[in-house]
Amino acid sequence: MGFIVEGEDSGDVALEPPPNFSMVEEGIYRSSFPQPSHFAFLETLNLRSVIYLCPEPYPEENLEFLRSHNIRLFQFGIEGKTEPSLATLRDAIRGALKILIDVRNHPILIHCKRGKHRTGSLVGCLRKLQNWCLASVFEEYQRFAGIKSRSADLRFIETFDIIYLRQCLHSIIYQYQGYGSKKRRLLYGEESVQKPQITSI
Amino acid sequence: MGFIVEGEDSGDVALEPPPNFSMVEEGIYRSSFPQPSHFAFLETLNLRSVIYLCPEPYPEENLEFLRSHNIRLFQFGIEGKTEPSLATLRDAIRGALKILIDVRNHPILIHCKRGKHRTGSLVGCLRKLQNWCLASVFEEYQRFAGIKSRSADLRFIETFDIIYLRQCLHSIIYQYQGYGSKKRRLLYGEESVQKPQITSI
Repeated sequence: MGFIVEGEDSGDVALEPPPNFSMVEEGIYRSSFPQPSHFAFLETLNLRSVIYLCPEPYPEENLEFLRSHNIRLFQFGIEGKTEPSLATLRDAIRGALKILIDVRNHPILIHCKRGKHRTGSLVGCLRKLQNWCLASVFEEYQRFAGIKSRSADLRFIETFDIIYLRQCLHSIIYQYQGYGSKKRRLLYGEESVQKPQITSI
Repeated sequence: MGFIVEGEDSGDVALEPPPNFSMVEEGIYRSSFPQPSHFAFLETLNLRSVIYLCPEPYPEENLEFLRSHNIRLFQFGIEGKTEPSLATLRDAIRGALKILIDVRNHPILIHCKRGKHRTGSLVGCLRKLQNWCLASVFEEYQRFAGIKSRSADLRFIETFDIIYLRQCLHSIIYQYQGYGSKKRRLLYGEESVQKPQITSI
């Protein structure tokens, strides 16, 4: 019994995702810092955007990868070694969440350096917005952080106020209160759905 | 600035996913054994099927959850304590993979008891079918298995022959060689796409 293969033949190239790669939600991925050896894999995600959570400048070869695939970069620089002030961290996570939940930016990849602390904190806050119970949010954080789990991150996630974010959501946003058909869609009355404007870097 | 909320109001019920819950691919989820406290969360996934990898009978309350949501159960009993023979394990994983990659069964949840070994082995074999490099497949297995990682599972994944599976794919199947638009679609020339037949348990 034969079958028809549609689409291009990708051959048997082994695809290498970055360490700590995972799908968070439909259209949302997370990982550690992608190296050039991971670009072939990342291509298959058809990314529209990247949220980068470190203060260091993006390396030229990564910028070139984004440019050549029309992927928009959103950088929110959070210090990794010294503990950032709570206000700085909160503002960065708030800003990143607004980008993250705007489906016009999907498919989107979140990454920092190792995909554990900064990425884990952002995903943890997203889960709170989705009404996950805190035990489940922590369990997921710890699965990625492993023995590097930081209690400061867990405290940050626990105390992060999602009410503010719910109140200031702007543009057309799906608020993932649930999956599938139960997704809520939040939109301003005065705005209509538009194709996203992809700007080059 | 106000916004319009479309869809039903889910209130502020905290949703609790089963431990080790994660999205594997669009329409494919994995977890540990769901308890009744996780049913509210599982409802939001709009599951069409469950792949259950243990030999023990499915508990009555879980069966009732499936029945009331028209979810089909596919059981492939793999022993958890004693090591199953390679042939038994291989046949079970082959059978489960055929169900798993058939999009007519999606959204689908894979689970065993703790979502580490049996589920991890099945997901590992799926990743091989997707052309992931072995290091990435192992990294993902270990993220879920943690300190319970078993070298027998890693050996099984490493030696699992995906050629056989590629040759015997039947019915309408998307072979996830990649994500998004690069997904290959395999279908028999003589078959047309049909709405899946959901049979009650």
